[in-house]
Amino acid sequence: MKKLTALLLAALMLFSVASALATDAAPKAKYVFFFIGDGMGAPQTTATRYYLGTQENPDSAYPVPAKLVFDDFKSTGLMTTYDASSFAPDSASTASSMASGAKTLSGVINYDVNKEKQFKMVSEYAKEAGMKVGVISSVSLDHATPAAFYAKVPSRGQYYDISVQGLTGTTLDFLGGGGFKRPDGEKDKPAKNLFEIAKENGWNFVNDNEGIRAINAESGRTLAIVPDKGDSDSMQYEIDRLAKVAAGEDSVSLAEMTAAAIRNLDNDKGFFLMVEGGKIDWTCHANDATTAIYDTLALNDAVKEALNFAEKHPEETLIVVTGDHETGGLTIGFATTAYETHFNYLQNQKISFVKFDEKIKKMREDKTSFEDAMAIVTADFGLTLEEGKDLTLTADERTALQNAYELSMLPKDQRIIGEKEDFLYGGYEPFSMSITHTLNNKAGLAYTSYAHTGLMLPVYATGAGAANFGGSYDNTDIFHGFMNAMGLTADAEIPTLSSAK
Amino acid sequence: MKKLTALLLAALMLFSVASALATDAAPKAKYVFFFIGDGMGAPQTTATRYYLGTQENPDSAYPVPAKLVFDDFKSTGLMTTYDASSFAPDSASTASSMASGAKTLSGVINYDVNKEKQFKMVSEYAKEAGMKVGVISSVSLDHATPAAFYAKVPSRGQYYDISVQGLTGTTLDFLGGGGFKRPDGEKDKPAKNLFEIAKENGWNFVNDNEGIRAINAESGRTLAIVPDKGDSDSMQYEIDRLAKVAAGEDSVSLAEMTAAAIRNLDNDKGFFLMVEGGKIDWTCHANDATTAIYDTLALNDAVKEALNFAEKHPEETLIVVTGDHETGGLTIGFATTAYETHFNYLQNQKISFVKFDEKIKKMREDKTSFEDAMAIVTADFGLTLEEGKDLTLTADERTALQNAYELSMLPKDQRIIGEKEDFLYGGYEPFSMSITHTLNNKAGLAYTSYAHTGLMLPVYATGAGAANFGGSYDNTDIFHGFMNAMGLTADAEIPTLSSAK
Repeated sequence: MKKLTALLLAALMLFSVASALATDAAPKAKYVFFFIGDGMGAPQTTATRYYLGTQENPDSAYPVPAKLVFDDFKSTGLMTTYDASSFAPDSASTASSMASGAKTLSGVINYDVNKEKQFKMVSEYAKEAGMKVGVISSVSLDHATPAAFYAKVPSRGQYYDISVQGLTGTTLDFLGGGGFKRPDGEKDKPAKNLFEIAKENGWNFVNDNEGIRAINAESGRTLAIVPDKGDSDSMQYEIDRLAKVAAGEDSVSLAEMTAAAIRNLDNDKGFFLMVEGGKIDWTCHANDATTAIYDTLALNDAVKEALNFAEKHPEETLIVVTGDHETGGLTIGFATTAYETHFNYLQNQKISFVKFDEKIKKMREDKTSFEDAMAIVTADFGLTLEEGKDLTLTADERTALQNAYELSMLPKDQRIIGEKEDFLYGGYEPFSMSITHTLNNKAGLAYTSYAHTGLMLPVYATGAGAANFGGSYDNTDIFHGFMNAMGLTADAEIPTLSSAK
Repeated sequence: MKKLTALLLAALMLFSVASALATDAAPKAKYVFFFIGDGMGAPQTTATRYYLGTQENPDSAYPVPAKLVFDDFKSTGLMTTYDASSFAPDSASTASSMASGAKTLSGVINYDVNKEKQFKMVSEYAKEAGMKVGVISSVSLDHATPAAFYAKVPSRGQYYDISVQGLTGTTLDFLGGGGFKRPDGEKDKPAKNLFEIAKENGWNFVNDNEGIRAINAESGRTLAIVPDKGDSDSMQYEIDRLAKVAAGEDSVSLAEMTAAAIRNLDNDKGFFLMVEGGKIDWTCHANDATTAIYDTLALNDAVKEALNFAEKHPEETLIVVTGDHETGGLTIGFATTAYETHFNYLQNQKISFVKFDEKIKKMREDKTSFEDAMAIVTADFGLTLEEGKDLTLTADERTALQNAYELSMLPKDQRIIGEKEDFLYGGYEPFSMSITHTLNNKAGLAYTSYAHTGLMLPVYATGAGAANFGGSYDNTDIFHGFMNAMGLTADAEIPTLSSAK
């Protein structure tokens, strides 16, 4: 009998070990967070780690990187991002691939390459499984990346159609961040106001900082738009938002918007929340590295909110952080600085290129001299004509800045833009581009493009089902990773490129 | 009794499941491969995947990437590479960190930042555990990366000292690849010939292609140097080696050298073999992307040899593939090509920049005209003055090439090199640089630097203990990953930066 009891105990113990292992191996993700840094590849996160580490350790004799919160995630993967148009894809196709598991052309959202078959989104599957769904973006809510989680359109330019699908469809419970680009229909085709449509469809529209901070589970289906929109109906760049806050003004952060969504969506059946740091892409298009670093930090802060939530549901929460593609061809190294990097120099930048563009407009109106313009540049970026400083311009840099200044002082319709100007300024305000390029390069950073690039991206995952996101794979596998993690099975056909006409 | 039997069976079954799980979780690595692509970051591998995919699918309507063999490795990690000197480190410090688990200054091999304390290498631990140790490099055997696995010197420039340590020390059983830079001592300090030292220390010196292909377990302690050395006592660039082979000449590949080492080192107590693709770095310093892609493919072929071996010992073989740092700030995107990439254009390149430098020397001697020089450029790189071709030069590109040509036609001591020339040519032959820059850019690729950069690198691992290499970590953790995988414990102090004077 003793022997029997021992065996029984052993069996029970082994059974509990085995079942614990089984549970660990495949826990089901009930609370799912998907953070997308638009344009955020390894160069952007690495630059952010090194900027922050340098800022936090000003007196260190040795380089010290800081950690981003997702650096502690145990599961890391590497993802290809090419689409059906190019190895350098766009946000519409890449977000669609991650949302729906299929490749498509640049510019297309959740339609196949023939623009006929619609894709079925992971957010739809989550909704069918009883989960709530939220979408947040720091850019306008109708932009390609957020749209890929609630809308299907042959062209990303159908802003109004996208918004109508989001507001009238059944997928979304929470939609927050920037505003709508086309509240009254497309420019050539006026249509019913989106806020009227929202009201008719039971949305609770919140448009003030305190209101956003008060959003909770009782707020119902919530449309939250920040009151202080920046360029193109987006939220402010983080560097500009922090300047506002430092000046005593109020402005909701991406992290606060994320916290609001969590409070709103938290329920017994779980949720799927996509949060986009959308302006990392915009500022990298414009080659403004410092602003990209601050927007990466804003996304990092938003991830912290998910980690705080995960502490309450550690077995059932999945957090995935990645980008959709790299933007700008950012590198941490420049031809003439070689092995030297000076991330501390970037601390001299006080405003985004967009805010400085506004100052250039005023300079043009005021006919500000180059010397007076440079005084403003020194205050905002540290670059100076004064001899003997860290950021003193070299002769070539001064020439480059002065050429750009002179072009920027001309009315736009009087500027002659050739191959060289395309290369130097990429269609942006020449003086701003020359300033950020010079500051980047002095700090030991550089960009090669004003467009997206083809670099593979890191994927970071933690929590329930995180193992699905380890290894090397394609962005279409992100969809399958989420489906596996949530224990869901795709019932719709997933179009392949070989089935295209 | 039936119940008891059932319980007993259940217990046995569960026990076998549990122990199988435990074995899976921590198998011991007996045969360890460490492949280092010097200068190989995600940009280099991504470009290689896209080049190869484009070459293999010339008629595809959609972009198709190819796979490198390590893309199927299940464990992937992301590694910081900064050293005690800079966020943009060198090969001496980074290879030391991976070999020995400690940070040090650029230029230092397995010594601490005070150049006093020596590090203990993973290869030493492996040797103490009874394993054999091999080191292969496609550059000279005394170069920083291979040296970090068998030598300890305050300065990487101590080529002769490094070689002597390798030949007279007890760590190495196999050393193969390029040659020695200082066979008869440093230039200012002649010393005993290294091949004599090798003979005295029982090395079997093999210096011909067929001899290298015949190396096996009976060859003893083997020093294998390719007969057809390229620049700076290295192996040929893969693009040039393939051209030789296509012309009917013989030349041992990095993969063949790896296969020779495997045959030589294979024994019951296991081995640790480091294989460096060292010229990915060199060609990226010189911004020659096509040559970098071919050298990445050569490393990929070497990894295949390890995978072939692993099929025989699947439970006991560990293969890790990574780089030491990124070189050149390569990106897959350029300002004026924007979203277009044309990897097929790179197929027009037939030789490395080094081979073309030799042609420039002859052009200078022959006083070759620009038009005649361009005929050679068209044959070797596809770039052409003829109108209407894919690779027809734009007006600005023609000007850039002609300026570079004119500088290259001057004797080196008559060239005036200022800030602009530093930026454009980085100390390399101006005409070669202008050619590869132009071809890269037309294909949609670009570099930002002639030095190493600070980008984080992917790490790929498969086999016994591969899980040690998942997640985000520092290059010093690579040492600990190997030690854990091999079941070894570090008995020597690992100096930290905070303990530095």
